[in-house]
Amino acid sequence: MPSYVHGYSDRENERLFDQANTLAGLLHYDTRYPAGSQVLEAGCGVGAQTVILARQNPESHFTSIDISPASMGAARVAIEEQTLTNVTLRLADIFSLPFESNRFDHVIVCFVLEHLQQPLEALARLKEVLKPGGTITVIEGDHASAYFYPESQFAQQVIGCLVTIQARLGGNALIGRQLYPLLRRAGFQNIRVTPRQVYADASRPEWVEGFTRNTFTAMVSGVREQALQTGLIDERAWEQGIADLNATADEEGTFSYTFFKGVAVKSPCG
Amino acid sequence: MPSYVHGYSDRENERLFDQANTLAGLLHYDTRYPAGSQVLEAGCGVGAQTVILARQNPESHFTSIDISPASMGAARVAIEEQTLTNVTLRLADIFSLPFESNRFDHVIVCFVLEHLQQPLEALARLKEVLKPGGTITVIEGDHASAYFYPESQFAQQVIGCLVTIQARLGGNALIGRQLYPLLRRAGFQNIRVTPRQVYADASRPEWVEGFTRNTFTAMVSGVREQALQTGLIDERAWEQGIADLNATADEEGTFSYTFFKGVAVKSPCG
Repeated sequence: MPSYVHGYSDRENERLFDQANTLAGLLHYDTRYPAGSQVLEAGCGVGAQTVILARQNPESHFTSIDISPASMGAARVAIEEQTLTNVTLRLADIFSLPFESNRFDHVIVCFVLEHLQQPLEALARLKEVLKPGGTITVIEGDHASAYFYPESQFAQQVIGCLVTIQARLGGNALIGRQLYPLLRRAGFQNIRVTPRQVYADASRPEWVEGFTRNTFTAMVSGVREQALQTGLIDERAWEQGIADLNATADEEGTFSYTFFKGVAVKSPCG
Repeated sequence: MPSYVHGYSDRENERLFDQANTLAGLLHYDTRYPAGSQVLEAGCGVGAQTVILARQNPESHFTSIDISPASMGAARVAIEEQTLTNVTLRLADIFSLPFESNRFDHVIVCFVLEHLQQPLEALARLKEVLKPGGTITVIEGDHASAYFYPESQFAQQVIGCLVTIQARLGGNALIGRQLYPLLRRAGFQNIRVTPRQVYADASRPEWVEGFTRNTFTAMVSGVREQALQTGLIDERAWEQGIADLNATADEEGTFSYTFFKGVAVKSPCG
């Protein structure tokens, strides 16, 4: 199993559900499948997006796969807690899918391509199991879309640590801007990419708390040990960077971040 | 008259109207004033926003001021061409407004604060001539919100040249993210800042042409001589940077940029 930059701790799991709930409206409001749809969710992780998507599409069936047994266990708990009956969990690798061709009406991939060394190859594999005429939905962030007030070189530096560590693991934290060319190269049609921007200031306290603090700053904080141990940054600069990120959640602070959502179609001709 | 980073050439004037038309929907669609409103547009420049706002609010009267006689002349031509009868142009300085207190129902300022050494002081002066209960609308970009694919250090460098030159002239090309704290410090109430993101890829050719090429890359290109003459960059790197910006307008390119629009109210108690 490849290394995963955010790790598998309980605290990280909690962060993933906080994040998913905060972002549900922004990212998923327009993901509505026709009744009876068979949907593959590739890389469901701890099920943070799964529960939102399955609740929102009660008449569709979700097959949600992940490569991590630990995440799958957490996803199982989440699905049971929500008493969802339209989700089948399965341990599987995107690069070796245990499904026949043209098996699914739709495919969705959320915060997964950013962690893969071969995102284009992953799209090709997912296309194989997607029916002609079916849609693929891809959602990714782009950490270079993060800018804030007050500005801070230290805060930029700690974000840079996350980007570098993720890149060393073969991922790409700046992949959001690439959804259009990736979907195009993978041969999808009718590609429509839309940015979904988070903007937080004191007039939007739910975003300051739910995103600036509990999603973004928490995510960056998660790579502290890796960043310090590999000498990417010294402890003093790290602490200042995190303090400065937290300062963007203060009364006069602002924080911007953009996710990208791409929806595209597999040619009806296969 | 303070120096103005974009200069006053005919070509630049044309760019300003291209930009305004491309962005009109995104930036101004929700600027609608009640019939009979007296609106001050501070820093109208060549009238690129003026004609859009005045057409969209035919029953409001606009008093549009600027400090540059050359720009004012161009604005006069634009207004006559559009046969607009609800605009009064006046040569005036934001920091020395020739109006009595509480004179205007509403104030709008678009792409102006970014060029001022004292944006907070400007807001204070504008607040004086605004009636209690009236609104101020402020629109600004933020050049650090520009990111694109393919990525390019040279492209970042040429954008950095514009940011640096504008800063040397006392301006701030990264002011968009500061609208909330600025309006707050100026004592306005009910502040609502909304990001307005431009996203261009080949599926949106009007944005590729109207924004990536004719607005943003054209704007950066405008500081070429200043950048080279002041040694901020060498010619080879400059040409590569502009070529790389143009490459983001190609078939697989993407380009993102965010404007911020803030609307706030002067306390009914004055």
